[in-house]
Amino acid sequence: MIQGHGDDIYINERVIKANFSSNVYRHINHSGLFRHLQDSFPKINSYPEPDSGTLANLIAEKKGINRESIIVTNGATEAIYLIASTFRGKQSAILSPTFSEYNDACNLYDHKIRIISSLSGITEDDEILWICNPNNPTGNVIPLTDLHNLICNMTDKIFIIDQSYGELTKEETLPVSAVNADNNLVIIKSLTKEYGIPGLRVGYIASCKRMSSIINKHCLPWSVNILASDAARYLIAEGDPGFNIDALLEEAQRFMGEIANIPGFLTYDTKTNFFLCRHDSTKASELKEWLLAEHGLLIRDASNFRGLDDKYFRIAAQLPEENNLLINALKCWKAVNI
Amino acid sequence: MIQGHGDDIYINERVIKANFSSNVYRHINHSGLFRHLQDSFPKINSYPEPDSGTLANLIAEKKGINRESIIVTNGATEAIYLIASTFRGKQSAILSPTFSEYNDACNLYDHKIRIISSLSGITEDDEILWICNPNNPTGNVIPLTDLHNLICNMTDKIFIIDQSYGELTKEETLPVSAVNADNNLVIIKSLTKEYGIPGLRVGYIASCKRMSSIINKHCLPWSVNILASDAARYLIAEGDPGFNIDALLEEAQRFMGEIANIPGFLTYDTKTNFFLCRHDSTKASELKEWLLAEHGLLIRDASNFRGLDDKYFRIAAQLPEENNLLINALKCWKAVNI
Repeated sequence: MIQGHGDDIYINERVIKANFSSNVYRHINHSGLFRHLQDSFPKINSYPEPDSGTLANLIAEKKGINRESIIVTNGATEAIYLIASTFRGKQSAILSPTFSEYNDACNLYDHKIRIISSLSGITEDDEILWICNPNNPTGNVIPLTDLHNLICNMTDKIFIIDQSYGELTKEETLPVSAVNADNNLVIIKSLTKEYGIPGLRVGYIASCKRMSSIINKHCLPWSVNILASDAARYLIAEGDPGFNIDALLEEAQRFMGEIANIPGFLTYDTKTNFFLCRHDSTKASELKEWLLAEHGLLIRDASNFRGLDDKYFRIAAQLPEENNLLINALKCWKAVNI
Repeated sequence: MIQGHGDDIYINERVIKANFSSNVYRHINHSGLFRHLQDSFPKINSYPEPDSGTLANLIAEKKGINRESIIVTNGATEAIYLIASTFRGKQSAILSPTFSEYNDACNLYDHKIRIISSLSGITEDDEILWICNPNNPTGNVIPLTDLHNLICNMTDKIFIIDQSYGELTKEETLPVSAVNADNNLVIIKSLTKEYGIPGLRVGYIASCKRMSSIINKHCLPWSVNILASDAARYLIAEGDPGFNIDALLEEAQRFMGEIANIPGFLTYDTKTNFFLCRHDSTKASELKEWLLAEHGLLIRDASNFRGLDDKYFRIAAQLPEENNLLINALKCWKAVNI
């Protein structure tokens, strides 16, 4: 487990005015969910279903795939570790820079790991491909046709496509039902990110029935808490994402543009609500500490993403008034650090 | 993941009047906890701590051990799988009949498994010993001196002692602080069982600092949901188990005695709130189905515990009026099956 993830609000005693450090949009209205969870409280004296079967049924129905193609997991993180465990010892190519857990999980299960920086870096010997799409931390999205051609042309390789951020872009990503046709495709989804509930930990793996039965052998029972699975069932049944994706992405672009206008700061194109930034002469760790101490704002030091240097940081757009706080604070940093 | 665990209320559409099928006492008053969890709701839009560090600190302080000796887990089940993964490929002896997850986890991680029926069955080649104490499903407790002597005399072996049911007996069990002195001891604890919250999934592993750092390499981040860790912190800080162990064990003995008096039914001594029963000529699966259909009562068919035949079932004492429902139903079974 690496140290230095985002959303590390808990290590600070200081009051956080706004938190840009995780990729999750923090302003989804959960009042309906809270009422539902209160009604679920009496269930905590029973065990959850060992395999969250009712939730799996609901997902399968909504996505138009077989129940047997869905494995519900304790967040996308458990999905990553389960898959790495299933393919223990294989040669894994990881499209980077990306979320560190692919590397950590492959490392734990003795994969031969290759870090590649583009899809053209895939070699004949690679057996498993790990692709985060939209990608964390860059916010890039691979064009759907390119990705689909790759999966169809390289049928001897298994593609693990982490679409945890699929609901946070307007670019086309693979439909979950693609696993019906492509036997070498495993899709990871995060309900945590889709519904803004990272505290609850719930996600799933979709793959063809055969692949799913292989991965399922590595599952442990009761891994998803009863309140988490109840919350997911409620949110899926409601069908309302709780935020406007157009408005959120538009605000992210405005936010990014404003930061790019501050001398010394670079921003990098994104297709989602989060994006990478870099200051040309300041360590991200130093900037993070200053923003927290002086302005009560929390960003993600992105220097521990492999392939990024110590000046990168990642931010996720929140409410315009919060984003403005960060814009002004970065201007202030510029003013006091001439 | 085996099928046929207890607490399988979810597979039945029928109304359950009383549930004896898990080992948890279902009548702990959680109203204070519910109020606390409501206050925690706004936290679900943040990630939990990757390692549930604050909860680990609290446990360490209460138990008089180092913070580094505690690994918080997604229930005792994750603890079992983490330990099996850590000691991959070793020779494991499992004291049986017992909870099937030791076998399943050891199997997943390529252990050479030996099933032993008594501690005298331990051989020189065994590297890891799995002992559930108090034991599920029998409710037996190994005398503390015997267990401690064994751990001290066999320093080349690692003892995994699952004390998940430690709070459900008045027999002496190992204090968690024993891991300070015994480097070959790993204790599993379940807050799920201690506080009657199996829906929430939270437990921990205690071991010496060195062992803990080895097991920790196998942990995945964010495995414990923020409501689960908040609940555990609240319950530990409150310090009230929420039930009277003397009264519960006394009622369990009365319950068992009443069943033993029904011709054809055998019961087996226990030191906890749950116990094994057997009917001399009826399959447990058949009895379970009849009790559910005719009386709305749920018991645990214990026939899939290795070493038990198809006539064993397990029940956990609940409220006296619930227990009486089962006693009367079993008498009724006797009457209609002469």
